[in-house]
Amino acid sequence: MRTSIATVCLSGTLDEKLLAAHAAGFDGVEIFEPDLVASPDSPEAIRGRAAELGLSLDLYQPFRDFEGVGPELLEQNLHRAAAKFALMNRLGIETMLLCSNVATARSGDEQLAAAQLRLLGGVAEQFGVRVAYEALAWGRFVDSYEAAARIVRLADHPRIGLCLDSFHILSKGHNPEAIETIAADRIFFVQMADAPLLSLDVLSWSRHHRLFPGEGAFDLATFMGHLVRTGYDGPVSLEVFNDTFRQSDPIATAVDARRSLRWLEHETAAALGTRAGGRAARMSTEALPEVDPPADINYVELRTGELAELRRLLAQLGFRSHGEHRTKDVELWTQGAARVVLGAPDSAHAQPTVAGVGLSVADPALAARRARELFSPEVPREEAAGEETLVGVRAPDGSEVFFGVAGGAEPKWVGEFRPPDAADAALIDRVDHVNLAQPWQHFDAAVLFFRSVLDLSAEATIEVAAPVGLVRSQVLHSSNGVLRIALNLVPSGAAEDAILPQHIAFATRDALALARTARERGFQPLDIPANYYDDLEARYQIDPDLLAELRELNVMYDRDESGEFLHFYTHPVGTVFLEIVERREGYAGYGALNAPIRLAAQYQHRRNTSRGVDA
Amino acid sequence: MRTSIATVCLSGTLDEKLLAAHAAGFDGVEIFEPDLVASPDSPEAIRGRAAELGLSLDLYQPFRDFEGVGPELLEQNLHRAAAKFALMNRLGIETMLLCSNVATARSGDEQLAAAQLRLLGGVAEQFGVRVAYEALAWGRFVDSYEAAARIVRLADHPRIGLCLDSFHILSKGHNPEAIETIAADRIFFVQMADAPLLSLDVLSWSRHHRLFPGEGAFDLATFMGHLVRTGYDGPVSLEVFNDTFRQSDPIATAVDARRSLRWLEHETAAALGTRAGGRAARMSTEALPEVDPPADINYVELRTGELAELRRLLAQLGFRSHGEHRTKDVELWTQGAARVVLGAPDSAHAQPTVAGVGLSVADPALAARRARELFSPEVPREEAAGEETLVGVRAPDGSEVFFGVAGGAEPKWVGEFRPPDAADAALIDRVDHVNLAQPWQHFDAAVLFFRSVLDLSAEATIEVAAPVGLVRSQVLHSSNGVLRIALNLVPSGAAEDAILPQHIAFATRDALALARTARERGFQPLDIPANYYDDLEARYQIDPDLLAELRELNVMYDRDESGEFLHFYTHPVGTVFLEIVERREGYAGYGALNAPIRLAAQYQHRRNTSRGVDA
Repeated sequence: MRTSIATVCLSGTLDEKLLAAHAAGFDGVEIFEPDLVASPDSPEAIRGRAAELGLSLDLYQPFRDFEGVGPELLEQNLHRAAAKFALMNRLGIETMLLCSNVATARSGDEQLAAAQLRLLGGVAEQFGVRVAYEALAWGRFVDSYEAAARIVRLADHPRIGLCLDSFHILSKGHNPEAIETIAADRIFFVQMADAPLLSLDVLSWSRHHRLFPGEGAFDLATFMGHLVRTGYDGPVSLEVFNDTFRQSDPIATAVDARRSLRWLEHETAAALGTRAGGRAARMSTEALPEVDPPADINYVELRTGELAELRRLLAQLGFRSHGEHRTKDVELWTQGAARVVLGAPDSAHAQPTVAGVGLSVADPALAARRARELFSPEVPREEAAGEETLVGVRAPDGSEVFFGVAGGAEPKWVGEFRPPDAADAALIDRVDHVNLAQPWQHFDAAVLFFRSVLDLSAEATIEVAAPVGLVRSQVLHSSNGVLRIALNLVPSGAAEDAILPQHIAFATRDALALARTARERGFQPLDIPANYYDDLEARYQIDPDLLAELRELNVMYDRDESGEFLHFYTHPVGTVFLEIVERREGYAGYGALNAPIRLAAQYQHRRNTSRGVDA
Repeated sequence: MRTSIATVCLSGTLDEKLLAAHAAGFDGVEIFEPDLVASPDSPEAIRGRAAELGLSLDLYQPFRDFEGVGPELLEQNLHRAAAKFALMNRLGIETMLLCSNVATARSGDEQLAAAQLRLLGGVAEQFGVRVAYEALAWGRFVDSYEAAARIVRLADHPRIGLCLDSFHILSKGHNPEAIETIAADRIFFVQMADAPLLSLDVLSWSRHHRLFPGEGAFDLATFMGHLVRTGYDGPVSLEVFNDTFRQSDPIATAVDARRSLRWLEHETAAALGTRAGGRAARMSTEALPEVDPPADINYVELRTGELAELRRLLAQLGFRSHGEHRTKDVELWTQGAARVVLGAPDSAHAQPTVAGVGLSVADPALAARRARELFSPEVPREEAAGEETLVGVRAPDGSEVFFGVAGGAEPKWVGEFRPPDAADAALIDRVDHVNLAQPWQHFDAAVLFFRSVLDLSAEATIEVAAPVGLVRSQVLHSSNGVLRIALNLVPSGAAEDAILPQHIAFATRDALALARTARERGFQPLDIPANYYDDLEARYQIDPDLLAELRELNVMYDRDESGEFLHFYTHPVGTVFLEIVERREGYAGYGALNAPIRLAAQYQHRRNTSRGVDA
């Protein structure tokens, strides 16, 4: 599959955009006209620069408001087009995108539009270029690819073909199946974009909220399947207008974009099965290595400057220390199958944070290969002789995912620490989920990373009110439910005073017993307001004894159609904290209703601490 | 008019919200339940705190999903309500907001809903409280205020009345006229919110994009007029869910909110004229002092650390220096009626910026009184003996607006500087417009400030693509066209590398002559790419001689239906720059099509400068 990206997807100057597309491994780019017009470089210099970077210039875009006009305007439009064709000759670009008329068309007569396109084809021929006609979802008369295809067929000129854009087709709910009725040599170009499902006018939706494939809700693999079956083998290009990507580092965005196309290629191959069907498929769509879901969360790694406080909390919660690693500057704490690697921030982990997640998988080398094929940077790691080899990759936010071997009572690397001290019976069984706060510019990329690299499924996005703004939250889970990662988008305006809710939740079989035992060891949970328990009582007519115990122990409560959820929190230690959860009878959520209370309590705690009230 | 604000409008803890409402001068607040539930303070402590701050607690909200349910759920709902009524007794709140059922209603039978509300009224009576029933725009069966009013009439219980919310009524395009058919004693509460016109599902629109009155597009004065004519004299309260306000400083937001209600009161008084009509108006709605539009832009004030560079630019553009002020640390440059006060950043103006705008008005004291009545902080200013008295107020972003006396050839204070040196004939006549970049959290507040304090009209918002993201831009102008302020919202993510487009545009009668003269004096304009002029040629079939001159002089070009626009820019000096504009034959715009080119050229200039290419 030949990959391309429109320069409008990326921030910066045209030169910076070309560099980013090259760095991310794209085959080519679409030149978005405003980027060219604003560039201080001549068309010839841009052509040379692209060649130097090994990028083909696949499309010049957009040309607007051409067809369906009166004779005088047609004359002007042909003049405009000739100027652009001359420019394309200087750039060495063969194909120009023509959007269906939104402003100046006076007639929807398809014969008229076709006749005018035929004239345009004649001019294009003089310049040795061609025109890809695209139906915009908000085109004045032409707003469906089927209408555009009819007009192109009527125009019947070798220089006039189609551009198919997944957004314009799927946003209107049009069935992409009829793509298969189009001759491959009439499809001059293909643009792909995903998007969240919004009830917003389609123009605003398109201009602000497009996403890279795999980050939204469109079924793009099916769309691509229809395309492959036509025999199309031209570029598959990303044209994504997105307010966030416009503000973000162009290289990071380009890598995210490139990953999205690799993922789409894989999904398409999977959807097509072994044969493309219909006409002979000429586009190669290669599947990624298939990996099983993780057997187990191998470990979680916490980096914090406040090690003593975290050790105290872990001990109070019943974790046992295995001391320091024999060669590395980290220590290990375990309880049941929950393993916490604890270290101070270092050069590779500058921020106090949940620095990484280890996964036990059937074939670590295969999992790493899949990640690499998805353009994930590898994390360098040194092992001393006899130590287990773990291979790791870096997520968009800088956190690490390491793959270790599944099987056996515990991972081999645990033996690289000393055996733990004796302890009470463990009440914690394993890690329930990991919550990674995402900087605003990495959220969508993180969804795609975890979805594609680890083959997780994305649940619906929810919003949670915090004292500093709305937090967007999305959970991704593995098919066997072992790995659950919650991504939180923290309001960007709140940077100075934000509580980055970076945390690990441990599963217990008895939250109340654990809370009580921990308290006997001196544990002070995050303080939950009395008003919360009064509200619980009003909402649920909850058993008075249970309510009294929840209230006494600062344990929160939720219900869903299948069961109950009991959970409590440690105080935040810097920007990291721990949660203990008990799922009764298959409760499947995360206590979302309680999240605002928790966020407010953490905010209050920080306010109190900074005022020295309970520092 | 009694004013109130829902705690959900403001960021922080409940205590911080109460403090902000108090600081901004509200009479009362609505307690948003999640704020109460998350508060560590007991209901009695909150009641005491509000009393201490002189705030009434006007409403407890929201109570949801009560009516239209089956008998079992009704029982549970009555239990829930009784718990909340008991809580309201502890808080000392008389009125509870009940939203129309969105989730659990099984029937839309208005008789059934009324009968269930009557039961609720009975429970409310036991607690001495009352219930204000509100139709949500997305209510399952009840989604219009007229339906809610019918149900309340059928319920016929003294403890059951209505809450009217402007958003739920106007977002659905419902005619608010029938409000006048409702008996005043059945209207228990009124919530006001403005909003931009969006084609978004009404729930998302409501939860994220509400604005304070005067910041959006709803006709709230007419809405209020209907309300006043009923004889209603209860609180008028703001309930504004807004993603930005949730993240912003609560005191600044509360002041913005309080200003919006004062402005709404004024607009309502103006809409009602001298008599309220219909039933006797009991709510006082006092108009603000009416002020004439400014006769002239008295001056603009620039603060920059790079004074020498700015002096050089002003001289090259034909400005004449009047030297330093006789007692203040600023200098004056003039040309025609354009006056630039120039100073270094000081304690009151820490940032290099367009620090203020002076306006010549018929009655400065009256203009200042209007501003004060709109909760604008006064700017302290000292005058030495014999110096002109200017009174000033501060806009939300910290910039200043000063009022001086109109009339005479030039303001009296100009005589506090020395006369200028002789100079060539002036080509600049006056200030054309002022462009103030707004931090993300002040944009909507700035629109309201300028609209209300200076009686400006807001034009449509546009979006301009910059290399670092989309810039939102909105122009406000005085009725006589003398004052034009463009507000730009700079992408927040781009803070580190942003070009804050803070600038002043001067009007010339001949941009080309001025550009040429300035060049002879050594002026180097902002470099505009050759590609831009090639594109102009393709777009406009422009006269080749004119195009050559534009290209040579780096002058940009635009057209509208009435005339032409020629304009050019200085290099940015820090975050400040100057623009020269020539409007031919009544061109009314600001060259928006050229803005992306200018933004890219500035970005490129900074890139080059930081690399030392042309520093």
